Amino acid sequence: MNKIAVVALGGNALLRGNQKGTVDEQEQNTMDTLENLLFLVKQGYNLIISHGNGPQVGNILMQKDAGEQLYGIPQMPLDVCVADSQGSIGYMIERSLRNLLHKHGIKREVCCMVTPVIVNKDDAAFSNPTKRVGKLYNKETADELAKAKGWIFKEEVKDTGSGWRRVVPSPIPIGIANERVIKQLVEQGVIVIASGGGGIPVYIDEEGNMRPAEAVIDKDLASSLMASLIGADEFYILTDVSYVYLNYKKPNEKKLEFLNHEDTLKYLNDGMFGEGNMAPKIRACLNFIENGGKMSVITEATKLEDKSYGTKITMEYD
Amino acid sequence: MNKIAVVALGGNALLRGNQKGTVDEQEQNTMDTLENLLFLVKQGYNLIISHGNGPQVGNILMQKDAGEQLYGIPQMPLDVCVADSQGSIGYMIERSLRNLLHKHGIKREVCCMVTPVIVNKDDAAFSNPTKRVGKLYNKETADELAKAKGWIFKEEVKDTGSGWRRVVPSPIPIGIANERVIKQLVEQGVIVIASGGGGIPVYIDEEGNMRPAEAVIDKDLASSLMASLIGADEFYILTDVSYVYLNYKKPNEKKLEFLNHEDTLKYLNDGMFGEGNMAPKIRACLNFIENGGKMSVITEATKLEDKSYGTKITMEYD
Repeated sequence: MNKIAVVALGGNALLRGNQKGTVDEQEQNTMDTLENLLFLVKQGYNLIISHGNGPQVGNILMQKDAGEQLYGIPQMPLDVCVADSQGSIGYMIERSLRNLLHKHGIKREVCCMVTPVIVNKDDAAFSNPTKRVGKLYNKETADELAKAKGWIFKEEVKDTGSGWRRVVPSPIPIGIANERVIKQLVEQGVIVIASGGGGIPVYIDEEGNMRPAEAVIDKDLASSLMASLIGADEFYILTDVSYVYLNYKKPNEKKLEFLNHEDTLKYLNDGMFGEGNMAPKIRACLNFIENGGKMSVITEATKLEDKSYGTKITMEYD
Repeated sequence: MNKIAVVALGGNALLRGNQKGTVDEQEQNTMDTLENLLFLVKQGYNLIISHGNGPQVGNILMQKDAGEQLYGIPQMPLDVCVADSQGSIGYMIERSLRNLLHKHGIKREVCCMVTPVIVNKDDAAFSNPTKRVGKLYNKETADELAKAKGWIFKEEVKDTGSGWRRVVPSPIPIGIANERVIKQLVEQGVIVIASGGGGIPVYIDEEGNMRPAEAVIDKDLASSLMASLIGADEFYILTDVSYVYLNYKKPNEKKLEFLNHEDTLKYLNDGMFGEGNMAPKIRACLNFIENGGKMSVITEATKLEDKSYGTKITMEYD
């Protein structure tokens, strides 16, 4: 049977911070990113693609906020906004990938699955929301929204602007709703786009019903869980650096190319990776290895094919 | 092998015109509608569910318009807006259906596929846009938008408000991008939600690339095509009447319970069905029968199980 690779695209694979976010920009970014994945397909890998949605779901939240202000259209909760983003980002990836495969004369089916991802309703994250979403508000509006909708705000002071931003819980994913269907399709060679934006956050209540969770799930943790559940061989996180570093951007910066589980865990526990950036990626990589995956890789999309790049994490050193 | 039924839910199955459109309303509507479909599952049918998106994509267009006005977030084209709506409506249907199946102790998998639907780029509809979308604008704004974005507007005079509304082409669907995957999953008993909102409109260009079409595809025609392509046995269109009528709401109104292909086509060609309402549904039903389907049914969701209701169209009378 062909090897299975799960590739998690960063939020910036489609929409970049320095761009306005037009559909043409997003389409070009998507094509550029996906082109780098084709060698995996040519080498006979079966492929699952997941993706971030930070900039897009930020836009969707602001559009729905604007729709409520201007036209009185009720704001939608976070699970529905993530579902929106899975539809549109998934479609853009699917269409771009179909065209790239066509260009290279490769015959593979591509499909995109709307994917609820299950969290534990008692996850500690629900009493300690940390993930910033949506727009910056002034104090007065933030207080009004907090009162009207029960939203929680944290003050943010940045070069780019200060104000109050909503924070939501980021619970740990524990299940992928369509695990079996995704596994079956990918084993048949269908390239499946799934679990976008960390998945649509849901939990299972006491009666066994699936309920919406007002939360955002880390996309790398969700992708790693999916990779483990479907029995993938390799797990790739594509981001904006070619390697993971110790002491990143400091005089004693050290590039990490090969890591075993033990050393990685030690570095992580020693706080060597930034909590807002690399640490969750490292955790996702370790989870995959602990659950039987052969190799986790963190690198840039453009460096994926040249295997001399990238930080490769395995259980043991060769 | 189990029979396959394709059920096309009307746009009002989730969001009704007289409601504000909160997520709670939409969830309740969805549960109410889906409850009526369970008997098909209990009778051993394999099931594909498609759905309209009129009210939802109308809201999404207005939210994106508001997002551009208030926050300068670029408006997205129609294909992307339909993709948004497939994500969120599909998710709401999937979650509600999972909970209903759980309540009734039925074990079936449910998944939602983001579905591009292919139209012909030379479809005559592209030079004659007829489908009204988005909000009512005043003449001045409509003229500005026409100039800036190339949108086409038609004047609308109604009791509920007058103004200028954008019109877009409604081309005929000729292909379903994920036909083979959908067929395979449904034959295994997975309940598949697909082709929502008539599908994401795309066309295939001269080089064989899939390109976005700025259009809206009739959801019943797309559902009927999907039903034919996957070899479904029965095709159901759920709407707000229990039967199709001749001379609807006139003194000589006549309820139609059983129809063969010949009589239906004659009534259609004689203009007996409203062009903005029942005629496209009838065409979708006839297409399905002509392509080998056994029976098309038009009725209300609440009357689905009681087979004494509904207009049933077959090739021949029994």
